[in-house]
Amino acid sequence: MDLKNYIKECLDRVDRALDVYLPAEDSLPASLHKAMRYSVFAGGKRIRPVLMIAACEAVGGDAEQVLPAACAMEMIHTYSLIHDDLPAMDDDDFRRGRPTNHRVFGEATAILAGDALLTEAFVLLSDAQLNGRVPAEIRCRVLHTIARCAGSQGMVGGQVVDMESEGRSIDFPTLEYIHTRKTGALILAAIQAGALLGGADEAALAALTRYGEASGLAFQIADDILDVVGDQAVIGKDVGSDQARGKATYVALLGLEEARGRARELRDLGVAALASLGTPAEPLRRIAHYIVDRSS
Amino acid sequence: MDLKNYIKECLDRVDRALDVYLPAEDSLPASLHKAMRYSVFAGGKRIRPVLMIAACEAVGGDAEQVLPAACAMEMIHTYSLIHDDLPAMDDDDFRRGRPTNHRVFGEATAILAGDALLTEAFVLLSDAQLNGRVPAEIRCRVLHTIARCAGSQGMVGGQVVDMESEGRSIDFPTLEYIHTRKTGALILAAIQAGALLGGADEAALAALTRYGEASGLAFQIADDILDVVGDQAVIGKDVGSDQARGKATYVALLGLEEARGRARELRDLGVAALASLGTPAEPLRRIAHYIVDRSS
Repeated sequence: MDLKNYIKECLDRVDRALDVYLPAEDSLPASLHKAMRYSVFAGGKRIRPVLMIAACEAVGGDAEQVLPAACAMEMIHTYSLIHDDLPAMDDDDFRRGRPTNHRVFGEATAILAGDALLTEAFVLLSDAQLNGRVPAEIRCRVLHTIARCAGSQGMVGGQVVDMESEGRSIDFPTLEYIHTRKTGALILAAIQAGALLGGADEAALAALTRYGEASGLAFQIADDILDVVGDQAVIGKDVGSDQARGKATYVALLGLEEARGRARELRDLGVAALASLGTPAEPLRRIAHYIVDRSS
Repeated sequence: MDLKNYIKECLDRVDRALDVYLPAEDSLPASLHKAMRYSVFAGGKRIRPVLMIAACEAVGGDAEQVLPAACAMEMIHTYSLIHDDLPAMDDDDFRRGRPTNHRVFGEATAILAGDALLTEAFVLLSDAQLNGRVPAEIRCRVLHTIARCAGSQGMVGGQVVDMESEGRSIDFPTLEYIHTRKTGALILAAIQAGALLGGADEAALAALTRYGEASGLAFQIADDILDVVGDQAVIGKDVGSDQARGKATYVALLGLEEARGRARELRDLGVAALASLGTPAEPLRRIAHYIVDRSS
């Protein structure tokens, strides 16, 4: 299989579905829907939707079944970016080279666009017609899993502790607390949702949960490494934004080589968890390798 | 029946349940959970939960069945107040005589406390164990109804248009657009959720929907009237906050007497819709009278 192609196909599918599910730009209130669409279609890599589709297919499911949930997941991810960028939070003017939501639409609309994306994600997840082939029991369980991972003891909790830790030296358990929640929780939820929607039994769900926990953390460590290594490779580029903000990272706490070692360990742990799933889990294995190897 | 007593009993029940369902103040991250609880227990009148319980009982249901949903509804209402009060929005320092969330916990935590309350509401609504007696199909439908009413074409949409209309003269259709969404949508959702959880058939659901639409609007008109009349009655008090902000109100557009007439009309419409439901709908009738008569 060609991983690049696989990811591209997933991404195109998710983007087409998002365009259908999100209210049109000219539907009232137009300013709100414009702001929502601006950030949803701002060049995201759709990592969570891709992982959800791959997890669904790993247990023999059909990608079609996860499209509403995959879009909901991306809407939740986008809301979190819009709110993280706000002046009261990270105060970022640019994201992926484009002005952030509040720079274009103003702070009030940006807050509300985030609120609306989060809410509309749950509209999508609970839609009986869109999810017609999924039993209501599973639909509820998927929604519950995603909401818990996004909530006060998941993603939002991680963001709070991250914010409170800025500019302070933190210990390793605090760093893991932040990362397993701020980014790890939603990645895990994407994989569990894909498994559940694909019809996984409890054993397959447990295997994919182990994969999701390991990959979520590996993904974050790789990101920390790239924040340092990416910069060193390009002369004249600004220092890493994490370093500049005094944010704790795996590299800062463990050193570059130990961080790389930990990422490789987690990659192998994740891949090992997939053993019982055979060939349909190949995309997930390749993704784990891709995540970690790009930072080695 | 004694309406005051009925409301007091509902309120106590909902407050006890909220205390159980919300993460404890000392559960991590403590600052976030403190901020969430601060605004949830800030003396809210619990109108939406009361209406949900009353709608459930009107179709022969048991209040116990709606408690998780009633608490979720109050968490959504509270999130909307926290975000509305932010400096970028209404910039309010006080609500019900207490400093607003961002004044106590800072803007970043206030934004995240709102985000977390909205998310945790959906955790609660989708919890299979808490909602064990409710079939998954109904649980999903209730969640969908509430999410839709809170989303970009419901409550958030109303808030956007309200914000955009501030200080500008707006026409009557725009005023109704704002009110049916900003406050009406969540009131209607509370009543529909109560009906569904109480086991309403489609005819009873339709009757309660008519009641909910009429009461939601009546409630807002009464509020507009009280913003004017409440002030006139007390010499030396500040002018109404709506007037001060240049917000359009029913009183400003229709005049006091016509606004009162419209509120009474809606009250009668709402009460008439309940005819087929008999005695169990008595609390809902009394609430409709209470809402409108306090402004007459």
